[in-house]
Amino acid sequence: MTEALVLHEDRLFPTDPGMRGIARRLYAEVKDLPIISPHGHTNPQWFAEDLPFPDPATLLIIPDHYIFRMLFSQGVPLEDLGIPRRDGGAVETDARKIWRCFAERYHLFRGTPTRMWLDHALRFVFGVEKRLTEETADRIFDHIQECLNKPEFRPRALFDRFNVEVLATTESPLDDLRHHAKIRDGDWNARIVSAFRPDPVVDPDFEGFAGNVAALGGMTGEDTASWSGYLAALAARRQAFKALGCTSTDHGHPTATTCDLDRAACEGLLAKALAGKCTAEEAERFRGQMLTEMARMSLEDGLVMQIHPGSFRNHNRRIFESFGRDMGADIPTRTEFVHALKPMLDRFGNEPDLTVILFMIDESSQSRELAPLAGHYPCLRLGPPWWFFDSPEGMLRFRRNVTETAGFYNTVGFNDDTRAFLSIPARHDVARRVDCAYLAELVADHRLEEDEARELAIDLSYHLVKQAYKL
Amino acid sequence: MTEALVLHEDRLFPTDPGMRGIARRLYAEVKDLPIISPHGHTNPQWFAEDLPFPDPATLLIIPDHYIFRMLFSQGVPLEDLGIPRRDGGAVETDARKIWRCFAERYHLFRGTPTRMWLDHALRFVFGVEKRLTEETADRIFDHIQECLNKPEFRPRALFDRFNVEVLATTESPLDDLRHHAKIRDGDWNARIVSAFRPDPVVDPDFEGFAGNVAALGGMTGEDTASWSGYLAALAARRQAFKALGCTSTDHGHPTATTCDLDRAACEGLLAKALAGKCTAEEAERFRGQMLTEMARMSLEDGLVMQIHPGSFRNHNRRIFESFGRDMGADIPTRTEFVHALKPMLDRFGNEPDLTVILFMIDESSQSRELAPLAGHYPCLRLGPPWWFFDSPEGMLRFRRNVTETAGFYNTVGFNDDTRAFLSIPARHDVARRVDCAYLAELVADHRLEEDEARELAIDLSYHLVKQAYKL
Amino acid sequence: MTEALVLHEDRLFPTDPGMRGIARRLYAEVKDLPIISPHGHTNPQWFAEDLPFPDPATLLIIPDHYIFRMLFSQGVPLEDLGIPRRDGGAVETDARKIWRCFAERYHLFRGTPTRMWLDHALRFVFGVEKRLTEETADRIFDHIQECLNKPEFRPRALFDRFNVEVLATTESPLDDLRHHAKIRDGDWNARIVSAFRPDPVVDPDFEGFAGNVAALGGMTGEDTASWSGYLAALAARRQAFKALGCTSTDHGHPTATTCDLDRAACEGLLAKALAGKCTAEEAERFRGQMLTEMARMSLEDGLVMQIHPGSFRNHNRRIFESFGRDMGADIPTRTEFVHALKPMLDRFGNEPDLTVILFMIDESSQSRELAPLAGHYPCLRLGPPWWFFDSPEGMLRFRRNVTETAGFYNTVGFNDDTRAFLSIPARHDVARRVDCAYLAELVADHRLEEDEARELAIDLSYHLVKQAYKL
Repeated sequence: MTEALVLHEDRLFPTDPGMRGIARRLYAEVKDLPIISPHGHTNPQWFAEDLPFPDPATLLIIPDHYIFRMLFSQGVPLEDLGIPRRDGGAVETDARKIWRCFAERYHLFRGTPTRMWLDHALRFVFGVEKRLTEETADRIFDHIQECLNKPEFRPRALFDRFNVEVLATTESPLDDLRHHAKIRDGDWNARIVSAFRPDPVVDPDFEGFAGNVAALGGMTGEDTASWSGYLAALAARRQAFKALGCTSTDHGHPTATTCDLDRAACEGLLAKALAGKCTAEEAERFRGQMLTEMARMSLEDGLVMQIHPGSFRNHNRRIFESFGRDMGADIPTRTEFVHALKPMLDRFGNEPDLTVILFMIDESSQSRELAPLAGHYPCLRLGPPWWFFDSPEGMLRFRRNVTETAGFYNTVGFNDDTRAFLSIPARHDVARRVDCAYLAELVADHRLEEDEARELAIDLSYHLVKQAYKL
Repeated sequence: MTEALVLHEDRLFPTDPGMRGIARRLYAEVKDLPIISPHGHTNPQWFAEDLPFPDPATLLIIPDHYIFRMLFSQGVPLEDLGIPRRDGGAVETDARKIWRCFAERYHLFRGTPTRMWLDHALRFVFGVEKRLTEETADRIFDHIQECLNKPEFRPRALFDRFNVEVLATTESPLDDLRHHAKIRDGDWNARIVSAFRPDPVVDPDFEGFAGNVAALGGMTGEDTASWSGYLAALAARRQAFKALGCTSTDHGHPTATTCDLDRAACEGLLAKALAGKCTAEEAERFRGQMLTEMARMSLEDGLVMQIHPGSFRNHNRRIFESFGRDMGADIPTRTEFVHALKPMLDRFGNEPDLTVILFMIDESSQSRELAPLAGHYPCLRLGPPWWFFDSPEGMLRFRRNVTETAGFYNTVGFNDDTRAFLSIPARHDVARRVDCAYLAELVADHRLEEDEARELAIDLSYHLVKQAYKL
Repeated sequence: MTEALVLHEDRLFPTDPGMRGIARRLYAEVKDLPIISPHGHTNPQWFAEDLPFPDPATLLIIPDHYIFRMLFSQGVPLEDLGIPRRDGGAVETDARKIWRCFAERYHLFRGTPTRMWLDHALRFVFGVEKRLTEETADRIFDHIQECLNKPEFRPRALFDRFNVEVLATTESPLDDLRHHAKIRDGDWNARIVSAFRPDPVVDPDFEGFAGNVAALGGMTGEDTASWSGYLAALAARRQAFKALGCTSTDHGHPTATTCDLDRAACEGLLAKALAGKCTAEEAERFRGQMLTEMARMSLEDGLVMQIHPGSFRNHNRRIFESFGRDMGADIPTRTEFVHALKPMLDRFGNEPDLTVILFMIDESSQSRELAPLAGHYPCLRLGPPWWFFDSPEGMLRFRRNVTETAGFYNTVGFNDDTRAFLSIPARHDVARRVDCAYLAELVADHRLEEDEARELAIDLSYHLVKQAYKL
């Protein structure tokens, strides 16, 4: 039996008729606003080259760790999903087989945001009308394949169709930004910018750190073996990113630790790090110092700073050995902010011209640490719920946990943070719906008037993000 | 004034009429499914001997630490409740007096699951029609006493009436399983199995550890003073349990620590543990190593592994000295899983033939650590909310916290985990109702179609638990 | 455009019509009950002298760190709000300008309890009928100013109008309690008592600790340089507080650590503390020992003990240097109770005549540690959600997190804990509404009968607090 694929127009709204009515009215105000996507991981090459996406599996499954982690958890080897092995060993290459393997197990995603995003893409991007099942797998595969061969499904056409006002990708300082330059220099009128993500050159534990820093020196003509040259090289690359429209930096450290060391200590740590001789504790201090240095540079060049701490990367040893990074095996850990951020805040916390956006994957810190910090320090803002919490329940918990202490105006709207290009409209739609649902609750129990909720809905969907990211 | 004892047919369902209708339809599909009880602490002797339960206090109060902990917290000495003292000192023996003491304070249980379970047993097992109060205490006591004297209230009759398809108890490797053997060898056609709980012989801090290990040697003919003999003895007892139908092991360690030590280190720790000379840290490492050893054995013999970490046992020193273990003084502590499980997961995490079911009493770990781990590792599944969280709010929080990341199919259905035999139908009923209420929410706000919710309701009540526990 | 200032009569009640009806009926039973305010920080001088409050800014903004922290977080310097600098440097003194600065930014408080409290005071204390905005700022300022000049807006008149049965303030042992004595000796028939807050003389890290302890000696004629004299001096001040009606002590330590040291260790720590030579760890142990000493004294003199742990005080270094304590820069930290309280509980945990009320600002401890502890130990009770969690969502989470394990009767009703006198009726009203909303949920999904909910609503609003605080 094949069921219709229905995305109900009231999805994610409260069930109570009074509240639902309010939510509908609020959503009507925001649903057609342009998408501001200030943080994500799409590939700028797609937009620079505008080649067709090759097939449904390559587009929707192979790059999406939300999808393959769930299949892996239920016993599907990553090889069967076409994920490339580091050693070049054999993996499935038949896109249809990969698609079938996924479709047969689509029930595993019930109740997950992945299901919602994929259904949204199937229905609204590709016009699919039947639910994805083992039975419909082949027909839907063929239909998507047919679409992908058409010009209106090329990256630029989709970007325009998605009504994206600005999209940020994320690059390392070592990236030459050629794709961004090409987009900018061409005649396509889209705003696609990079975010400066220096982890490979500021984290001594990053694979190839010393080589990365040397390459940084090569790119900039600075002596990155000296502390001052190293900082100058970073500042130079920030300028290069900024010149191509970049407005933000991003920092994915294992913790939120910041430090404020004296110059001699910094020089000593850099030397050790380049020699590969840092202890775990020294590496932590080096990263912590670099957050403070980045804050200082932000105060100078105006780039907005994003901190994404708390992920234990590559937790599954064998998967890391066989497949590398970003294979769905990053696991959140308990994250402390109050002591960790103090050295940086003691230096720059009261600067109204600095913006530091904090993300978290430890929800227990939301009401305890993050909302109180953001509700006090002028430089701090709260990023939206991240990663596993980019989900209806995660978003609702976030609003419920932080609003009473930090208000709405210390938050920065939504980030889709995705590699899955087709999920961008779906993700923003979910965020807008959930915010409207939350606001409808406040209106329905008379904590807020509806005219205020209307203004807030628009601020949360559009204005706050533009303002926070200076876009 | 005596009020009617009402258990409303819509209890625990959402109030919104639309959602309530969905919940009712889902619940109708599952309410009469047989009970699978894969983890609990009922006494197999009850079923082996089938003697009448002596009186209401002995049946319902004295063995139920949920009940006497609350009374104790409000100033009732355990002696007044008939809890036996270790020193044989005088305690109340008049069952009616104990019952009255409880009934006078029944308002203390408002809003607790204990109240719900007890009302369920009073209403549906004994047919009581008035609410328990000081005024009705005596009449209800007499009524229950009268029931208990009838054959249809003997353990086996109740077991059959409760529609239990399979019930697991929990025994130490030192248990001779005579009650299980007697049940199996008799002509009563019930499936009652044990679970292998080796804490007394794998935890150096357990009372009488060295003696326990020696007894293990005696039972198996192995030299348990040697590492290989010790492991062989454990493997032999696992086989003996398995021969009587056991399908799982259970591990109640203070933390989730696992280790992967070399053989010499293991031998050294065993020697120290047997000599009673382990430091706290060494005892922790020994327990951690034994979890990894148990995982290895599970991969060989197919027993499903359950880990129940995070309880600070016997927190009240004087109560422990006077009354012993399991006196309602076990308090949850912060529990870390991400680093703790890594040594075991590095060894066996990707084995699709291994099943490790994780329980928690630190809810902050649900969305942060457990759902992400279970949504990735093939061997991991999430047990239902445990102990204090075997409750409507606890269950709802669990589903809301884990579903979006781990889905439904990395969870394993319900465990009643109880010593209170009469609460088993009540607990399963609560779990089924809460799951239906949660699913109704997802249907009502269009995150799930109702046909999918129906399939899920049945999976959560019946199929997942059978499959996860290989029952 | 000026909008009406509406406080809907059903605010904070559930939206579902059935639940809302129950909530209304419950609230009708409690809305007019007298206010019991057992813990707060109003200034007794107001009531002793009964002078008019000078102006709207001095009354409503300058003393309210909830308000100025939010404005500061959005870039308003504290100087602009008239907060006095330690160095006597210039700050805004024009009350109208301060008020305008606040009114222009009133949207920042949307969704916060501050908004609700202030609207309540504007509407019900001052009869304001328009929403506070940039446009209405001046008119509302003038209106409040006019009110404040009238006798019925003096402190005593407002106290009587607010229907406060008893109000506790908080004083240091070094306070001479002259204002309390004056209130008591006058002919005004109000019950205003102190709470004994010994932090300045029991915390070696408190500013001026040694001098404070010497002053304590001076006040009591005890040799506070000796351990026995120090304890005797504390006991004497407790007696002096008690003589003026005080029934409780309060302890604002950074953690919940308690200790049970031998006398020599205590003497050694006191000597070091007075010499200013404690390490951080020794200061922690000293504070921990003093909690146990205070518990012992409470067992003797009957004062109820309150523990408020977990705040990182004065987190913003520059704000502390420029403006001092209580400037909205106190940030909650992770707080551990299970190990921390054990030494004290091992000594006194089972004493039914001792009452220790625990507060928390780490919500993750509610279901994990606090409810299980309070649901077991006879001496323990749970204080209401504190500080950032004195809010509708915070209160609901608290009830949902603790009720199933600790019941209602191990909680102690509401504390307003405020310096903002005019927010007292608003805060109690919010607490009563939220409790009624929560109880209505339990009735609506049939976890509780309505007659029980009625009794509970009254207990939670009135009886529990009187009983717990012996008022």
